[in-house]
Amino acid sequence: MAAAFVSIPCSFKPAQISAILPRRLSRPKAPNLTLSTTASDQSYFDTANADISSHLLGSLPATLHPSVKTPIHRLLSSSTPPTIAPSLCLAASELVGGDPNLAINAACALQLIHAVSHARIAVISHHPLTEFSLGTELMTGDALLALGYEMVARTPAGDAEAATRLLKVLMEISKTAAAVAAVEEEEREGKLAACAAVCGVILGGGNEEEVERARRLGMFAGKKELAMAEVELGLGFEDVRAGAVRRLLQEILQCHSVTISPERKER
Amino acid sequence: MAAAFVSIPCSFKPAQISAILPRRLSRPKAPNLTLSTTASDQSYFDTANADISSHLLGSLPATLHPSVKTPIHRLLSSSTPPTIAPSLCLAASELVGGDPNLAINAACALQLIHAVSHARIAVISHHPLTEFSLGTELMTGDALLALGYEMVARTPAGDAEAATRLLKVLMEISKTAAAVAAVEEEEREGKLAACAAVCGVILGGGNEEEVERARRLGMFAGKKELAMAEVELGLGFEDVRAGAVRRLLQEILQCHSVTISPERKER
Repeated sequence: MAAAFVSIPCSFKPAQISAILPRRLSRPKAPNLTLSTTASDQSYFDTANADISSHLLGSLPATLHPSVKTPIHRLLSSSTPPTIAPSLCLAASELVGGDPNLAINAACALQLIHAVSHARIAVISHHPLTEFSLGTELMTGDALLALGYEMVARTPAGDAEAATRLLKVLMEISKTAAAVAAVEEEEREGKLAACAAVCGVILGGGNEEEVERARRLGMFAGKKELAMAEVELGLGFEDVRAGAVRRLLQEILQCHSVTISPERKER
Repeated sequence: MAAAFVSIPCSFKPAQISAILPRRLSRPKAPNLTLSTTASDQSYFDTANADISSHLLGSLPATLHPSVKTPIHRLLSSSTPPTIAPSLCLAASELVGGDPNLAINAACALQLIHAVSHARIAVISHHPLTEFSLGTELMTGDALLALGYEMVARTPAGDAEAATRLLKVLMEISKTAAAVAAVEEEEREGKLAACAAVCGVILGGGNEEEVERARRLGMFAGKKELAMAEVELGLGFEDVRAGAVRRLLQEILQCHSVTISPERKER
């Protein structure tokens, strides 16, 4: 029933901040992400990732110490394997009728957890992502993880309900960050995507049942068990609002079907 | 006016979890922390740190992956230089009439940031605190930082005001965590202590002016500029409630006056 576990789709572009921003408006359609099932020119994944990267870059605090500012920019623009988690967070928020702008800080936090955990692996395997020292690599990662929490905590919360949602999301993200630090690389995408879907639905105002369905949907999507994710989507959410998530699932599926390519073998 | 910048007091005991717990009830009074100015047998610093260590140990989630549980316990029980920040967080909460139990999660988060930043330095200088690999050291640190945020986020918040306070505290803590990662070791205690005092006062229900006075008070206390801290305390807060903070300041002063000892020179 479920697709076999495969690695992260090869053709999704990592959120390379410095590279994405200038190209964003003029960027041509990625040839191997053309979706026969949607009319739009641009993939949801690409659009969401560009928004997230732009927001993240704009959120780097002016108070950052100069000694970490350059390493942070370098780390964020270094090549990180792609993750569906941040875009899934935005899509899941739309799924329950929420405003994706409220979910973008959580999406950024997930992107940072993903990027830092990749940077840790690079350090451990003696191939650091930047030219900086071990100390700078470590401390830059710590500062970026902290930035993720700060971004979520400072999301505007007008009432008690919104503030409580943000606290729930912070609990989900911190639990996931601890879990991601404790598991092998190939298990991380499932955990990140489950957390992403949960955070999106919480911030979009979903109820308890929708949150738990989103957890399963995200876990399946992160593990590329797309048939199972589609089942959760079909049973648990209004079809009229499921567009963004369905499109994302189709993009993973589409990409999955074209992953047997030379560039994938190099990874 | 202000005392010269000195290192962390030598005779304060680090929050060694495994060591403190069994000894807590029967522990004799630390001989060089006897305070002539207070009647109590036990120092505020020692009592608060024992409470914080106990709470931290009890808060390690059952869902922690077994592969990090042992390294985490090992890291928490390893010898970390003492910090006044966690105890100052509790004392500052008392200062504005708050319940220290609401501040203990923030105090734990500060203890974790301090412990992990020490562990990072140990890794960078090739003297890791545990016998585990570089990867385990790094990931254990990441998991502990995440635990700190989770503990604060899950502090019970019954109403909008309490939830908003927790979000403010999370912003303060994450900003401090990023700052601590970016500065030299000797500047960290000032930043941690300022954050601690701010978090305690926010959680205790202090107003904006009290929060900013607490920030200065903490910064001065962290840098051992005790005369300046005493000024902030005297001008900004009700004297009847200033007991805990004043006692802590006296303990730093007392300890500071006996720091010219052989053991200090070794640090």
